[in-house]
Amino acid sequence: MENIEALEKIAKRLRIHSLVMTTKAGSGHPSTCLSMAEILTCLFFHEMQFNPRDPQDWANDELVLSKGHAAPILWAAYAEAGIIPLSHLPTLRLFTSSLEGHPTPRMKWIKAATGSLGQGLSVAAGLAAAMKLGRSPARVYAVLGDGECAEGSGWEAAHSAWHLKLANLCAVVDINRLGQSEPTMHEHDIDAYARKFRAFGWEAFPVDGHSLPDILAALDAARQTSGPAVLLARTIKGKGVSFIENKNGWHGKPLKDQELQAALEELGPMPEVDAKALVRRPPSVPRPAPAKRFRFKRTDYRDKTATRLAYGQSLVSLGKVNESVVAIDGDVKNSTYADKFFETFPDRSYQSYIAEQNMVGLAIGFSAKGFVPFLATFSAFLSRGHDQVRMAAYSAANLKIAGSHCGVSIGEDGPSQMGLEDLAMFRSIPGCVVLYPSDAFATEGCVEAMAAHRGLAYIRTTRPATPLLYSKGENFPLGGSKVLRSSRSDMAVVVAAGITVFEALKAYEVLKAKKIPIRVVDAYSIEPLDADGLLKHSRACRGRVVVVEDHFPHGGLGEAAAAALAGSARVEHLCIRELPRSGKPEELLDAYGINARAIVQAVKKLTGKGR
Amino acid sequence: MENIEALEKIAKRLRIHSLVMTTKAGSGHPSTCLSMAEILTCLFFHEMQFNPRDPQDWANDELVLSKGHAAPILWAAYAEAGIIPLSHLPTLRLFTSSLEGHPTPRMKWIKAATGSLGQGLSVAAGLAAAMKLGRSPARVYAVLGDGECAEGSGWEAAHSAWHLKLANLCAVVDINRLGQSEPTMHEHDIDAYARKFRAFGWEAFPVDGHSLPDILAALDAARQTSGPAVLLARTIKGKGVSFIENKNGWHGKPLKDQELQAALEELGPMPEVDAKALVRRPPSVPRPAPAKRFRFKRTDYRDKTATRLAYGQSLVSLGKVNESVVAIDGDVKNSTYADKFFETFPDRSYQSYIAEQNMVGLAIGFSAKGFVPFLATFSAFLSRGHDQVRMAAYSAANLKIAGSHCGVSIGEDGPSQMGLEDLAMFRSIPGCVVLYPSDAFATEGCVEAMAAHRGLAYIRTTRPATPLLYSKGENFPLGGSKVLRSSRSDMAVVVAAGITVFEALKAYEVLKAKKIPIRVVDAYSIEPLDADGLLKHSRACRGRVVVVEDHFPHGGLGEAAAAALAGSARVEHLCIRELPRSGKPEELLDAYGINARAIVQAVKKLTGKGR
Repeated sequence: MENIEALEKIAKRLRIHSLVMTTKAGSGHPSTCLSMAEILTCLFFHEMQFNPRDPQDWANDELVLSKGHAAPILWAAYAEAGIIPLSHLPTLRLFTSSLEGHPTPRMKWIKAATGSLGQGLSVAAGLAAAMKLGRSPARVYAVLGDGECAEGSGWEAAHSAWHLKLANLCAVVDINRLGQSEPTMHEHDIDAYARKFRAFGWEAFPVDGHSLPDILAALDAARQTSGPAVLLARTIKGKGVSFIENKNGWHGKPLKDQELQAALEELGPMPEVDAKALVRRPPSVPRPAPAKRFRFKRTDYRDKTATRLAYGQSLVSLGKVNESVVAIDGDVKNSTYADKFFETFPDRSYQSYIAEQNMVGLAIGFSAKGFVPFLATFSAFLSRGHDQVRMAAYSAANLKIAGSHCGVSIGEDGPSQMGLEDLAMFRSIPGCVVLYPSDAFATEGCVEAMAAHRGLAYIRTTRPATPLLYSKGENFPLGGSKVLRSSRSDMAVVVAAGITVFEALKAYEVLKAKKIPIRVVDAYSIEPLDADGLLKHSRACRGRVVVVEDHFPHGGLGEAAAAALAGSARVEHLCIRELPRSGKPEELLDAYGINARAIVQAVKKLTGKGR
Repeated sequence: MENIEALEKIAKRLRIHSLVMTTKAGSGHPSTCLSMAEILTCLFFHEMQFNPRDPQDWANDELVLSKGHAAPILWAAYAEAGIIPLSHLPTLRLFTSSLEGHPTPRMKWIKAATGSLGQGLSVAAGLAAAMKLGRSPARVYAVLGDGECAEGSGWEAAHSAWHLKLANLCAVVDINRLGQSEPTMHEHDIDAYARKFRAFGWEAFPVDGHSLPDILAALDAARQTSGPAVLLARTIKGKGVSFIENKNGWHGKPLKDQELQAALEELGPMPEVDAKALVRRPPSVPRPAPAKRFRFKRTDYRDKTATRLAYGQSLVSLGKVNESVVAIDGDVKNSTYADKFFETFPDRSYQSYIAEQNMVGLAIGFSAKGFVPFLATFSAFLSRGHDQVRMAAYSAANLKIAGSHCGVSIGEDGPSQMGLEDLAMFRSIPGCVVLYPSDAFATEGCVEAMAAHRGLAYIRTTRPATPLLYSKGENFPLGGSKVLRSSRSDMAVVVAAGITVFEALKAYEVLKAKKIPIRVVDAYSIEPLDADGLLKHSRACRGRVVVVEDHFPHGGLGEAAAAALAGSARVEHLCIRELPRSGKPEELLDAYGINARAIVQAVKKLTGKGR
């Protein structure tokens, strides 16, 4: 291999850049960069193929730096490859720079934000599956730290990549022995890692992570496997700088100026090499047409239908007009009704088994390649993927997430299965749309709206069948609400969503008989909330507002409404105020005070009418 | 083994109970129960030792049913053991019953709620570690489903149990081949499971899960291992009822009345056996003294100190007066400063490495045995353990959780490392206390208050050092707040917490110079919030409130205050309204509008004074 000498020079340049950049920035993780200089050199300047002029080129090999704290050496590699100017490197971590402390897509080549450890392998698996689906001949590389191999999410990804037979996926674990605060569990026991990956069905190649020929040979071998492959690279943290090499206490610490001088002396002068000339450009390949159509043929529901069932039906209808839509399941597709999509479009359906973190990670990968991934599980279990959803926001990912079995209305299965904090979780994610339809028609409208929206979106569906309220083809725009009952003399407005809309309508009838007219609003768009609409209704109803939701008190519709109305309305908030238990749905709605009876009482309290 | 015949009878009784209970309830998972009848029989009536009169007996072996949907057969086993009357079994899933759809501690023998899959092994490992620490000779058993082995959390627990050398821990995987919606990834490939567990350091014993002698022999062998052991039990879902045996589509479906009759005919009459006589009572052992003292010697801080550092210091001080306190780390102890406890009390310190789900699961186990576990990591990464924290609430667990590096004030590391949704997450957990101290003295007061509180509590700490505001020994009761500046002529009140308290104080000076007096309140107790105090201040300040927090808009202090003040105040809410990026802390506080400048502006807007 004639290039070895050039690659050695590049590795040294990457080391020098990493040290200089982090000292300049005054923070960062140089020792973590130094251990992977040879790994990144081999990937960027020998193994991977990419068009340095277009990060979206369908023929590009993809790289996910799961150990996101090694961002400086990644930026350095992009600079050496001619993708960004070398002069940008000193902007590391500046407010004005796209070269952030951990990778985000503000730098155009980054497909998914990393820095919360253990997530990169799922994203890489999602990219690889998306590239298979989109007939790209390219490959996906993921560089992992050894410390993050303690995260279970990585093993979910490992399962999944094996199951999906992702021969186009290659991971490299930079086993530098030292975690942040102490040595890792397995230190330099490479066999321990090999046993694990092999047990999870991967082909594993132990290598000396500072030997360029070793790494190149293993990457070569990894390209021949029938499933996913991993290089287990034994490396030295801080490699190349004697006084930090293999030493605890140097994680996340830039060198001081004097230390940097000593390090640079050790490393010698910056070698001259034309790294750009070593970048391998792939032959061009056609890319799939982008997702365009989101309006689908609506279903003619005739009878009460669970919104989760309507979700499944909508997904099939959407899938028929939009080939970019893919579905991901966590072995509950017969409960979320995603199974309808799986049956109709098996080639665009992915089983993640009971591994919600991986579901989200896969979806981030699909989204990054232009697909529109819909993933679904019980709303309660989406809390398992909270950190991945958080990172999806920083990844600017276009995920569509469905959470079924929300609230106490699921009944007898009990609290562990009830999504009662999901609105709080998804509302806390910046930019995430949150929809909560009450009937089947509303569900179709919401699915259409969330599909057409570019960005994160969550839809909350209900287990029991609910009556039909709306009509076929009705639209449910983001940020809207629906007024179901109103008159000029309304004495209060009841703001409900999902299952409680029907309770509000029952309360309306009871109160009407008592000559207490109320307005009933279906706030199906929890985020963005129709704040102007609510303000208008509140004013029209003498500033008396009842909010009723099948959710815990904090972070849901009640607080959203309170924030929107602050200063202008008295708000009675009905919600689940204790730890719920098993029981019949109607029993639970009553016991926790979110049914018609409770609404009637709240209205009476606000209006001072009756007891 | 002379008891085999009796055990066979018990297994049959458990099957009959499970079928009858679920048909009576009209919901539940009978097929899932049937596959584990022999497993549970062997555990309850041969292997385990427990005092049936006292679920808290320190000599009791513990059982965690990780596959919580098999609750009916667990209740049946408790009934056969004489712990609950047989007559209670038909109350399964009733609102009035402690025999819920999935196990919760409403049934006194349940140490941790299960039903969100993949969590039981961490809890079991926590129990086992706690029992080692408390010198109990007893053992811990965890029964897992095969489907849940796809959850990464289980592999985090597997790592951890091996690392902690938990020879008192024995798992049994009920490999019944069928998941909820389709066959599992590995179906009946027992070797695949064996390879995985062995790769994670466990001793694995494949057994025929319907052969009592096989299971007993393996349990015997498992008792001799030097680390954790697992039985890999090949079983048939629906075993004993021919028309559902090994058939897809029977997950979570009770038999209809006619089907039940057919099943009972197949199984034959209920066998007579004195199961209670087979319960093995352990010799009594002394239990550790319960946690009592929470008041600790306060530190005499002299200079600006990061609240995370004060957290670490407080933990040491608390540990000195309270031997029940244990600490759990996710390899960031040198950042959260939990390392101070690790150095002082190595025997009560547990390294979970980078595995946040397992941290929480371990802590639930420790709590169930009377310890007071403090776990700490970056607040951002606690989102990784959201589902476990959710289940901790249903487990009535006494967890103390510290999240460091909150908000944009961490600076250059960038968004992936910033906890900006943690207040929303912890506020959404019912009953969870949420504290956010601004200085080192407040941190000590908060740690003392959260330690003394029985239940879930979260403390949010800041990366940069902050000036001292309070004094040594000052108390910070739950539900309180501190008024830092006030006068009779205050024109607005600024409600801040943590880092923004200092910005509010700077704004006070600026506004004072402009003759706009404001009140400054430190809302260190985010939940419970001092709602009465805020109302009082709002009224005193003409209903003008500015809330300023280093958090995303939804679910944090702003919405908490808005909900508390609804109808009575105009609220200006300053918070992080876009996806943040790397930069200097002060640069970020300014860019996202949560610094003194922004507060001054907000007060001017509310008061109509100046631009």
